[in-house]
Amino acid sequence: MHKITIIGLGQIGASMGTDLRGKFAGVEIVGHDKEPEVAGKARKKGAIDRTSYTLPSAVEDAAIVIVAVPVESVREVLGSIAPHLSPGAIVTDVSSTKTRVLEWAEELLPESVEFVGGHPMAGVETPGVEGAQSGLFERATYALIPLGRTSPKAVETVVNLVQVLGAKPFFLDPQEHDSLVAAVSHLPIALSITLMQTVSHAPSWREMSRLAAGSFRDVSRLASGSPAMHADIFSTNRETVLLWIDRFQEELQALRTLVEKGGPALRSHLDEAYEARYAWLRGRVGESEADAAFADVPTAGEQTLTVFAGERLVRAARRLDDRKKRRGRGG
Amino acid sequence: MHKITIIGLGQIGASMGTDLRGKFAGVEIVGHDKEPEVAGKARKKGAIDRTSYTLPSAVEDAAIVIVAVPVESVREVLGSIAPHLSPGAIVTDVSSTKTRVLEWAEELLPESVEFVGGHPMAGVETPGVEGAQSGLFERATYALIPLGRTSPKAVETVVNLVQVLGAKPFFLDPQEHDSLVAAVSHLPIALSITLMQTVSHAPSWREMSRLAAGSFRDVSRLASGSPAMHADIFSTNRETVLLWIDRFQEELQALRTLVEKGGPALRSHLDEAYEARYAWLRGRVGESEADAAFADVPTAGEQTLTVFAGERLVRAARRLDDRKKRRGRGG
Repeated sequence: MHKITIIGLGQIGASMGTDLRGKFAGVEIVGHDKEPEVAGKARKKGAIDRTSYTLPSAVEDAAIVIVAVPVESVREVLGSIAPHLSPGAIVTDVSSTKTRVLEWAEELLPESVEFVGGHPMAGVETPGVEGAQSGLFERATYALIPLGRTSPKAVETVVNLVQVLGAKPFFLDPQEHDSLVAAVSHLPIALSITLMQTVSHAPSWREMSRLAAGSFRDVSRLASGSPAMHADIFSTNRETVLLWIDRFQEELQALRTLVEKGGPALRSHLDEAYEARYAWLRGRVGESEADAAFADVPTAGEQTLTVFAGERLVRAARRLDDRKKRRGRGG
Repeated sequence: MHKITIIGLGQIGASMGTDLRGKFAGVEIVGHDKEPEVAGKARKKGAIDRTSYTLPSAVEDAAIVIVAVPVESVREVLGSIAPHLSPGAIVTDVSSTKTRVLEWAEELLPESVEFVGGHPMAGVETPGVEGAQSGLFERATYALIPLGRTSPKAVETVVNLVQVLGAKPFFLDPQEHDSLVAAVSHLPIALSITLMQTVSHAPSWREMSRLAAGSFRDVSRLASGSPAMHADIFSTNRETVLLWIDRFQEELQALRTLVEKGGPALRSHLDEAYEARYAWLRGRVGESEADAAFADVPTAGEQTLTVFAGERLVRAARRLDDRKKRRGRGG
């Protein structure tokens, strides 16, 4: 009997369990949450096969450990499980910033353990185990950030997991990941929060709030995310977030100037934004041949070592090599 | 047979027709669109009883004329229909900025015709007649901005229409309206557009776009609105939009400073935004007694002149009087 352990049974952890359970013959999905009540709920929902009430027993003999806790708790969890992991165990996480997480993994996990950072680009508004659902990762991009020392076999195993979830693996460097998500995920959080602050600080907010409808609801939605998580994202990805706030301010200033002047330049600016979003929605951005090899994952039937070794893994391994080389030069 | 005419059979106009049809005995809903094909579609969808192919014939003998065209076309339409309106006809519009529209109505419509500006705070992403649907205005706030000279009876009639649509009338001055919607509706548009510009101008946009998920989709959504409509909003409500962009820039700078410093001040800023949105979602903002009288509209059974004359209309009339007095002072 093989064992996959999920630590943290919130929306992401419990959704993963739901879609991993019963997909592999002879594999048991074990769940742990610091709140036993949450673990109980996850089991009742069918997200895990059984619960394990202590971290050491949860990870003992596990082939794969998925750390699905908020980023500020990742360091503590890695430290706690490190002495209890079996040699060859593969550890992965799901948190939204990666540079710090990779540093912690390198620092805290023994050499005998593999680590592949992960970040599924999926989620729904309802937080916690209540928001867990089957199909959450279907067609989502799933960023994978292996440690420099990770073996191709461990990477392959995590790629397999991701594909079983229906998601699309996308390999990145940790800094690359953090810069990209700062723009498309953390900057939008800053904007939602700032929109809420701007309107709610206005003396006319009471009347204004009655005119606020669907467009306000969408653009302000992320202000309803967990403040603890947001504080965490902003502190673990500070420099990159600041950079993107600066770029946004420049762009907003550019729009301001155009609104002030009016005329055809404003109109073509608006057209440009419209077309950029249209292209994004249609998935036209990023469709170069080089990327397509990473994006178009094989179907379940093709998930064999040959396929991976023949194509994807070679590329992933090449990236890892490059990174090691760069690191070697840097040190 | 009384006649209600809807000019412009896009999402808003056709949705109104759908929910007004058959609600009044002896009333016919006539539709006009500059594109006969659109008018045909609206009729097929059951949004109107019949189409009228010219503006003069469309408004001839109409008791109520609903101008549901984009704001840049309102002036032209008002000018075209003015000579053909019957004395006592009530004209209303649905456009998203009001100061200019009220000026045009005052300038172009004969004294014998009543005008009540309107702005339903509702809409879906699908533009045009294809996006029209029953129930679109259900529980939506519906801003009403009468001309200074409008009779209480005309205001009452429009309030009745709004209530038949299931929406909640909310009386405002035109400048007040434009300032409030600039914050909760036009500023979000500027933010969505600027988010799209910021990311799509980045050299890494191609890779970034694959990590963009639900949170990016929501905050950038308004960039997919009609660029013509946005250009129009920004030009007819320029000064107020600029003011709100400036306020937003200041607030974003405040967040930037807090992100840079980190610590408890950042956290309480994030908590504040979270709580402000929670309060808004729960409808706690604006629940003062004075406002409640305007917000809690009577049910269909109570829609009698007595109710209006006894309460709501008195308040509306008082507002109109105040505005006239202010105007008198100003002139």
